[in-house]
Amino acid sequence: MDRLEQQFEFIREIDKEKFIGRQTYLSDGRRKENDAEHAWHMAIMTILLSEYANEEIDVLKTVTMLLIHDIVEIDAGDTYAYDEEAKKTQKEREQKAAERIFGLLPPDQGEKFKKIWEEFEARETKEARFARTMDNLQPVMLNDATDGKAWVEHGVHLEQIMKRNQNTAEGSETLWEYAYQNFILPNVEKGRIKSENIQEEQEV
Amino acid sequence: MDRLEQQFEFIREIDKEKFIGRQTYLSDGRRKENDAEHAWHMAIMTILLSEYANEEIDVLKTVTMLLIHDIVEIDAGDTYAYDEEAKKTQKEREQKAAERIFGLLPPDQGEKFKKIWEEFEARETKEARFARTMDNLQPVMLNDATDGKAWVEHGVHLEQIMKRNQNTAEGSETLWEYAYQNFILPNVEKGRIKSENIQEEQEV
Repeated sequence: MDRLEQQFEFIREIDKEKFIGRQTYLSDGRRKENDAEHAWHMAIMTILLSEYANEEIDVLKTVTMLLIHDIVEIDAGDTYAYDEEAKKTQKEREQKAAERIFGLLPPDQGEKFKKIWEEFEARETKEARFARTMDNLQPVMLNDATDGKAWVEHGVHLEQIMKRNQNTAEGSETLWEYAYQNFILPNVEKGRIKSENIQEEQEV
Repeated sequence: MDRLEQQFEFIREIDKEKFIGRQTYLSDGRRKENDAEHAWHMAIMTILLSEYANEEIDVLKTVTMLLIHDIVEIDAGDTYAYDEEAKKTQKEREQKAAERIFGLLPPDQGEKFKKIWEEFEARETKEARFARTMDNLQPVMLNDATDGKAWVEHGVHLEQIMKRNQNTAEGSETLWEYAYQNFILPNVEKGRIKSENIQEEQEV
């Protein structure tokens, strides 16, 4: 039963992902989402939207990747997409977390999960590219659904969103185009996303 | 873009599953779990534990089933496993919810999701049996991790747990045996699960 002990040790440990808060508000605008809810949402999105992937993807592999990709944040915390300071140490903090948490599993499964997490990070396979598309679009969709609440609170600029999404079309051009037209542009027009150049704004 | 509109309509709608509370406490014992967190947890459990299924299962199908099986609770609410009154109207409330919510999707995908939800409910395939095993064991595992907090609060009896778990072994004998020995029995011994017969107790 050693193997099952290790598996349940990991299963109990990842319960903590439910405590890791993100910056995105849920659709009622009342509270922010946590990592587990975010992963659940993207897993279903992948099952429904994989038909728009630029290249045909292995759906189970992509779903697994999305379900586990934030587990490292149990130790490393959530790094906000537009927090440039925190992003400097993010990689090192997350690598250490991966060693510890995936290390709780039986070696074969721990190695498998660690590899799939590294694959997500490296963004070099079609599954990783599509998973990144999901990871970028899900909060954009929720931000739009809450009238841009998190964007307004953080004073987010269009150029930050465009930089953050520079690879989103690599997973699915169709989905990126849809999101740009339906979730991003209308919020620029309504002033919820700042459209002036950041440098220009700082000079004023 | 009609198809994508319908898909995102559904994707936005299911965000509400994050508001549906369950009776199980998270591992820190502070707050109760919601349906989306529960589904996320079971999806990862399935990927790790499918090796113990009595019959070899289609993992993607089982994961999909678990990710979507509680979506009906957006309209029908969570029915506590030991609430006999609410359970009387549960089926009808959930069927109506399935029509409405899966009906938001493009017909092919809505039909597919509705079928997989009905398959879970009917418990007649090996994937449904394993999914039920996950759905029964995940809260038992969390209840044990919180020193039986929800069991104590509700004054739950061993015979209620055994009735609730009468089909758990049909998905995996190994996992049921492990859970019984490691999550249930120790809590009976510590008095967190009542072991006297319910009728006897009522006569006292």
